[in-house]
Amino acid sequence: MSAAMPAPAPDAAPAPRPDARFLRAARGLPVDATPVWFMRQAGRALPEYRKVRETATLLEITRDAALCAEVTLQPVRRLGVDAAILFADITTPLAGLGIEFDIKEGVGPVIERPIRTAADLDRFRPFEPEAAVAPLLDAIRIVRRESAVPLIGFAGAPFTLACYLVEGGPSRDFVNTKRLMHAQPDVWAGLLDILVEATLRYLRAQVAAGAEAVQLFDSWVGGLSPLDYERRLMPWMTRLFDGLAGLGVPRTHFGVGTAGLLSLQAAAGGDVIGLDWRIALSEGRRIVGDRAVQGNLDPVLLLGPWSGVEEGARWVLEQNDRRPGHIFNLGHGVLPSTDPDQLARLVDLVHDHGASR
Amino acid sequence: MSAAMPAPAPDAAPAPRPDARFLRAARGLPVDATPVWFMRQAGRALPEYRKVRETATLLEITRDAALCAEVTLQPVRRLGVDAAILFADITTPLAGLGIEFDIKEGVGPVIERPIRTAADLDRFRPFEPEAAVAPLLDAIRIVRRESAVPLIGFAGAPFTLACYLVEGGPSRDFVNTKRLMHAQPDVWAGLLDILVEATLRYLRAQVAAGAEAVQLFDSWVGGLSPLDYERRLMPWMTRLFDGLAGLGVPRTHFGVGTAGLLSLQAAAGGDVIGLDWRIALSEGRRIVGDRAVQGNLDPVLLLGPWSGVEEGARWVLEQNDRRPGHIFNLGHGVLPSTDPDQLARLVDLVHDHGASR
Repeated sequence: MSAAMPAPAPDAAPAPRPDARFLRAARGLPVDATPVWFMRQAGRALPEYRKVRETATLLEITRDAALCAEVTLQPVRRLGVDAAILFADITTPLAGLGIEFDIKEGVGPVIERPIRTAADLDRFRPFEPEAAVAPLLDAIRIVRRESAVPLIGFAGAPFTLACYLVEGGPSRDFVNTKRLMHAQPDVWAGLLDILVEATLRYLRAQVAAGAEAVQLFDSWVGGLSPLDYERRLMPWMTRLFDGLAGLGVPRTHFGVGTAGLLSLQAAAGGDVIGLDWRIALSEGRRIVGDRAVQGNLDPVLLLGPWSGVEEGARWVLEQNDRRPGHIFNLGHGVLPSTDPDQLARLVDLVHDHGASR
Repeated sequence: MSAAMPAPAPDAAPAPRPDARFLRAARGLPVDATPVWFMRQAGRALPEYRKVRETATLLEITRDAALCAEVTLQPVRRLGVDAAILFADITTPLAGLGIEFDIKEGVGPVIERPIRTAADLDRFRPFEPEAAVAPLLDAIRIVRRESAVPLIGFAGAPFTLACYLVEGGPSRDFVNTKRLMHAQPDVWAGLLDILVEATLRYLRAQVAAGAEAVQLFDSWVGGLSPLDYERRLMPWMTRLFDGLAGLGVPRTHFGVGTAGLLSLQAAAGGDVIGLDWRIALSEGRRIVGDRAVQGNLDPVLLLGPWSGVEEGARWVLEQNDRRPGHIFNLGHGVLPSTDPDQLARLVDLVHDHGASR
């Protein structure tokens, strides 16, 4: 962590800042310039993050409030983005649910004993945020005081979490998850009940600690057919978004590969619908109706020449055509080998594009 | 190969059979029952194929006309599908283009010296089908005589082939391909020129040998943004489909993960547009307009209980609502661990559903 960081001041009450560009755009209000932040902006693309990782694992960072806050703030300082996002992993809350897992370098989260039966559901324990993720909540309190831009809290969405839990590790086809869904519908429903309740508690605690917006990451939901989404997931997604409505913060609903699911996702809930890069933003806006949208530059373009980044970013902005309710982002996370100077230049390009009408 | 197979009779002239369900549906004409076949129906899901593989590699099968014909016919005999598809790999024509590659078990095609520079383009030689893939063309002639159902010829689409050539092996993000596309547009254009020309020659030869339809597999094109598709691929796809129009056979245009690209794909060409399982068939039909469609059951459902297969298949059929111009298929290939009895039962279900209007 940076030696320059002030000590936490637990008593300071963070002032609300509804006029921040990010929060205005999320509510569909006009802005002086399109707000921009990047999924996975805190992470391996930044040298200062890699330096932290020389002495701490990802899990250790999420269990050290000051270090977690520092990593969360790094991209805000370097890139000039309009929002910070809490540094954590989708699987971070699992330990607090009683599920043992490990994050293996180059593989991702691995769960030794996957959830496959009714008996496995008994392994879960109720999620108590202040006990389970106290350092993360403290990190939110620190960032909330230190950051000039709004802080986004986040959680993995129930389907994506369920895939981790049922597959036990990364998967291409989600065979075990889909088989469970169809062969043991009661177990599937029970698992989603647990995950929705835990996610509500997790995000409520993040907002109580100071998060000014929340985002649900449904990274793997794009593997579902619209039929399975509607019958075997949507009721829980609706319950989740309804439960978050009372928090009074914008809720972003993001998935990957969901061009054919967007209308169902929007119907399930969210003030802002995330778009990946595989659909024109204008088409995404048409499908999701009156919601704000977030996206949607192909992150791979940032590994090529600036001309490709510029062309792609201008296309995204033109697709939006200065309508209020657009938050610029990549269509998925920043890739680790991205040059941070390209990201900073992209932030400037988006800001220089000017105001929405 | 089966001992029961008659010897090839090179002089027999195959009779045309435009009344076959598959061909009628591909032309948007009413049928007595929805035609059905499965991508990768010839392959590891069938015990008789696995038996062949005990004595021959995939490459050896494609280089032995009788064996290739036998493997192509196996699913027709066992499953009662309405079309056969030539057994070959997307990478099969690469050797005839002068590009050395190997198919590694559990990995897929691997190209030791990927295409990354202008100089690499000089490594290609003109594709001469009768020299490059003579056994495959002979296999077509055999199948054409032996099979009661139409034979579909096929090729990998230029983008997917380019990904293999540029990445050198399987890839998740297509970083090298997209970088080449943007950083060396002339090399990219030159590569696509080569692949379009070779694919035209390859498919023309297949039709001349007796293939009654062709399908372009663009398995990886779903990784492209609509912008890159339109500016850096679509002109070549249009040229390819225009070039195939003169063959007088239905052309199927299939991609994976292309819900956001379908309107561009349909504009590029194809009499039948393939849909993967991640979009409702009714929505796909709306986007592609007056074309026939093919699809689109989630192949993973076949690894679960029959109830899930039945529900999913009925949903696909209901989405089509008995309109002419629907060929039932999976949204992607049959997975190797699929029980062939589930596939046969699915064929019966589709046929029992009855006629289009």
